[in-house]
Amino acid sequence: MSEDQPLVLKTSDNGVTTLTLNQPERRNSLSMAMLEALSAELHDIVEDAETRVVVLAAQGNVFCAGHDLREIREKFDDADFQLALFDQCSKVMQQIVDLSKPVIARVAGVATAAGCQLVASCDLAVAADTARFATPGVNIGLFCSTPMVALSRNVSRKQAMEMLLTGEMISATRAEEIGLVNRAVDEQVLDDTVYRMARTIADKSGHTLKIGKEAFYRQLEMPLADAYAFTSRVMAENLQAHDAQEGICAFLDKRKPEWHDR
Amino acid sequence: MSEDQPLVLKTSDNGVTTLTLNQPERRNSLSMAMLEALSAELHDIVEDAETRVVVLAAQGNVFCAGHDLREIREKFDDADFQLALFDQCSKVMQQIVDLSKPVIARVAGVATAAGCQLVASCDLAVAADTARFATPGVNIGLFCSTPMVALSRNVSRKQAMEMLLTGEMISATRAEEIGLVNRAVDEQVLDDTVYRMARTIADKSGHTLKIGKEAFYRQLEMPLADAYAFTSRVMAENLQAHDAQEGICAFLDKRKPEWHDR
Amino acid sequence: MSEDQPLVLKTSDNGVTTLTLNQPERRNSLSMAMLEALSAELHDIVEDAETRVVVLAAQGNVFCAGHDLREIREKFDDADFQLALFDQCSKVMQQIVDLSKPVIARVAGVATAAGCQLVASCDLAVAADTARFATPGVNIGLFCSTPMVALSRNVSRKQAMEMLLTGEMISATRAEEIGLVNRAVDEQVLDDTVYRMARTIADKSGHTLKIGKEAFYRQLEMPLADAYAFTSRVMAENLQAHDAQEGICAFLDKRKPEWHDR
Repeated sequence: MSEDQPLVLKTSDNGVTTLTLNQPERRNSLSMAMLEALSAELHDIVEDAETRVVVLAAQGNVFCAGHDLREIREKFDDADFQLALFDQCSKVMQQIVDLSKPVIARVAGVATAAGCQLVASCDLAVAADTARFATPGVNIGLFCSTPMVALSRNVSRKQAMEMLLTGEMISATRAEEIGLVNRAVDEQVLDDTVYRMARTIADKSGHTLKIGKEAFYRQLEMPLADAYAFTSRVMAENLQAHDAQEGICAFLDKRKPEWHDR
Repeated sequence: MSEDQPLVLKTSDNGVTTLTLNQPERRNSLSMAMLEALSAELHDIVEDAETRVVVLAAQGNVFCAGHDLREIREKFDDADFQLALFDQCSKVMQQIVDLSKPVIARVAGVATAAGCQLVASCDLAVAADTARFATPGVNIGLFCSTPMVALSRNVSRKQAMEMLLTGEMISATRAEEIGLVNRAVDEQVLDDTVYRMARTIADKSGHTLKIGKEAFYRQLEMPLADAYAFTSRVMAENLQAHDAQEGICAFLDKRKPEWHDR
Repeated sequence: MSEDQPLVLKTSDNGVTTLTLNQPERRNSLSMAMLEALSAELHDIVEDAETRVVVLAAQGNVFCAGHDLREIREKFDDADFQLALFDQCSKVMQQIVDLSKPVIARVAGVATAAGCQLVASCDLAVAADTARFATPGVNIGLFCSTPMVALSRNVSRKQAMEMLLTGEMISATRAEEIGLVNRAVDEQVLDDTVYRMARTIADKSGHTLKIGKEAFYRQLEMPLADAYAFTSRVMAENLQAHDAQEGICAFLDKRKPEWHDR
């Protein structure tokens, strides 16, 4: 892998854009440069009308090993850099959540620490059954405190705590059982599964996906009564849009809808 | 099914009241009329001392198909009606949560969109293993934004997101795995399972059930310390009631309790 | 078991302190005296530099049967005592959560009501496959309102509600499935499993465990953006500590770390 390869590769196919972490010789670790590259790509996708669904993938047999410990060691005396690094990392994770387009993690290999957080931060995740997950910061004295924000919003407390306190790997099957990934599949069918799921979603109205994803994460943080007051208005507004009225008519008329936004 | 059949049937047996959605030819869809009928029944049950447990069931092979799309299409130009419809639907869902008596969904067939939300909103749910669930609004351009309020408070994020973004059906077995229903059982034993569960609960002290159900949903929305401060007072008040003191004495004396409130 | 035996036994082995409920003839029930003994032990452990991990165990074939109903019956007319009892119980549960050292429940036998809450309140829990769990307060007219605070923060709503409304026992296997315990194991290997887990955690940096556990429960109660702002600062501070820098250097140099705090 030569030095002038981009850190994140971007390919698009009919509305599905794949971002691929492309530094396998560094275990796709989230150096400041990698985080900035990923952030820039996510930022571009916000305005990119062609992209309807994002797949987050990685080159090589490590999905992502978390922060770049060599970089961190070089900056032991630079507290400003460190805080900036963790802020940048947190920003990227929130960009994924805030992005109005669904993001699917395609996980082959090992996803650890902030790499595991990346999987947890995506809306959906499909893993090869050979994939493995851990939040092993505790093993090196640096607790996975930012990764646990995403992890603990995906899996239940004791399961999150076991990963965080022991630092041990879990299998893809276990990750599926506890809700960290949607499913673990044979490595041979990983791409098929991911892209069939991406394709299914990309065929929906983009306007509708945007409304729904944004409302999902907002209502999650509200008490029940507020969540209903909020989403009732969201539904009513959604219904005023062309795509909803077209979708309903098409359904009732037993024909395929013609989305404006697709 | 004639036009003058009630939209919701009500039958009672020894403290267990069954509300049955009764418009199978319209897939028991939640038209404004159906929502109003259901709301009225739930309202009556609040004050009905005979009802200790509610079972929510449906006629025919569709549990509930969500909103009535024909009605919505007729009202495309009536924004007031639309908001009123979603508000009414949200009101019914919250009536179930706020009702001081446990509500069990008995699900045979398909429960989709607001029909799936109805299942998620009940305290308990038992499904036939042939039942299926989906939040397919995304397929018709109208994201299941109100259904997701209930769904995302029952199942974990990625599982909710998969249902919401793909719009695909899940099996009753999968619904059990992810926590949307308490259990999936052979269709032959569905009623046995539901009514045994209802009977078990109906034999408790109604006063105690009321205290417990109300406190459950309130404490869920509190930080831990507040939740403990609140529920400690709830326990202390509960203990002052006849049924608690009778229950404790009966337990220690190895006899059946005689509830005042049953 | 003689009267002058301590209510809670304490043994320590190389950083792992085991607290053992020691009133099997009273089913290890949480009388005011037992709660005070447990609270005192937890309080002492805060400052005990030798203790790195706590195991919570019990003598006999009942882990803990919840409150002492005989004591409560004797105090039916003493509302002050009752409130003090529930406050003391809630305090102990929060001491476990607030303790800066991980706490693992070792569950053999039956854990009911506040005994089930004790398991739910621990960071981790391992159960013998013969263990069973219930929140049966509803059976005696006294709803498990404080236990449900911990229970409902471990398992999903319908599963919590089923336990609370029916009062029925669930198996250890079911408890594992729904996330109430980390795993259910053959009784023969219960101690092996618990102490291997405890040993694994005790070998980490205590300073790092303290940072991580405290941050875990705090961030859980925050909205996402606040949780990230908070934990990013936690990570940056963690990284300034000796043990993080030593851990990172040791990892990169492929040697074992030498913790200051262990």
